Amino acid sequence: MGIAETPEPPYTAVIFTSLRTDGDDGYAQMALRMEELACEQPGYLGIESARGDVGITVSYWVDAEAARAWKAVAEHRGAQRLGRAQWYRAYRVRVAVVQRDYGRP
Amino acid sequence: MGIAETPEPPYTAVIFTSLRTDGDDGYAQMALRMEELACEQPGYLGIESARGDVGITVSYWVDAEAARAWKAVAEHRGAQRLGRAQWYRAYRVRVAVVQRDYGRP
Repeated sequence: MGIAETPEPPYTAVIFTSLRTDGDDGYAQMALRMEELACEQPGYLGIESARGDVGITVSYWVDAEAARAWKAVAEHRGAQRLGRAQWYRAYRVRVAVVQRDYGRP
Repeated sequence: MGIAETPEPPYTAVIFTSLRTDGDDGYAQMALRMEELACEQPGYLGIESARGDVGITVSYWVDAEAARAWKAVAEHRGAQRLGRAQWYRAYRVRVAVVQRDYGRP
C-alpha cells in the first residue's frame, strides 16, 4: 500500500488516529480485512495507513455520504465494537473535506 | 506524541503522505525540528505522525490561512526543498477542513 491515487478535490477524508492496547488479539487480521472490505464499498477512493507511537489510517471517499455508509457496514460495525472493547486505548475519528492537494507521484 | 487534542470543528487538517528514499541523510533530525517549529506557529492545534510503508503526518490548524502561513515559514521551506531533492521518492499534501470528529480520549 502506498500513496492513495485520489481524484481532483473536493472529496472526503476520514482520519482515524488510535493508540493500541498491548498484544495482537486478532488485530492485524481484522485491520487487513477492513482494508479489503473498504475497497469494495461504493464511493471508495483509497486508503493510507501507518503505525508508530500512534496509528493513523486515512480513508478517502467521494463524499461524506459514502464515508457514512462505510461506517454503517455491518462487518465494519463489528470491528468498531471490538476496537472499542479491546484493541484501542484511545482513538479519534475526524471527517474532513479535502479542498486542495498537490505533490509528486 | 499521541492523539492531538483538537478543539470543536471546524478546523484545518494538512495530511502529508510520503514515501521515503533509502538512508537517513539528516531526515530524522529535520522531522523532529519541523515538529518543534510547527508548535510555535500561530494557529497551530496539534500534530500526529506515523511511518510504515508510507509516512503520514497530519497537522491541525485553526484555519486554512494558518496552514498556508506554516507552509511559507522560511526554515520549513528549506526542509520542503530538501525533501523534494533527497528525502522523498513521492509525496502528496492534502489540505482539508474537518467538519466533525468523535472518539474516546
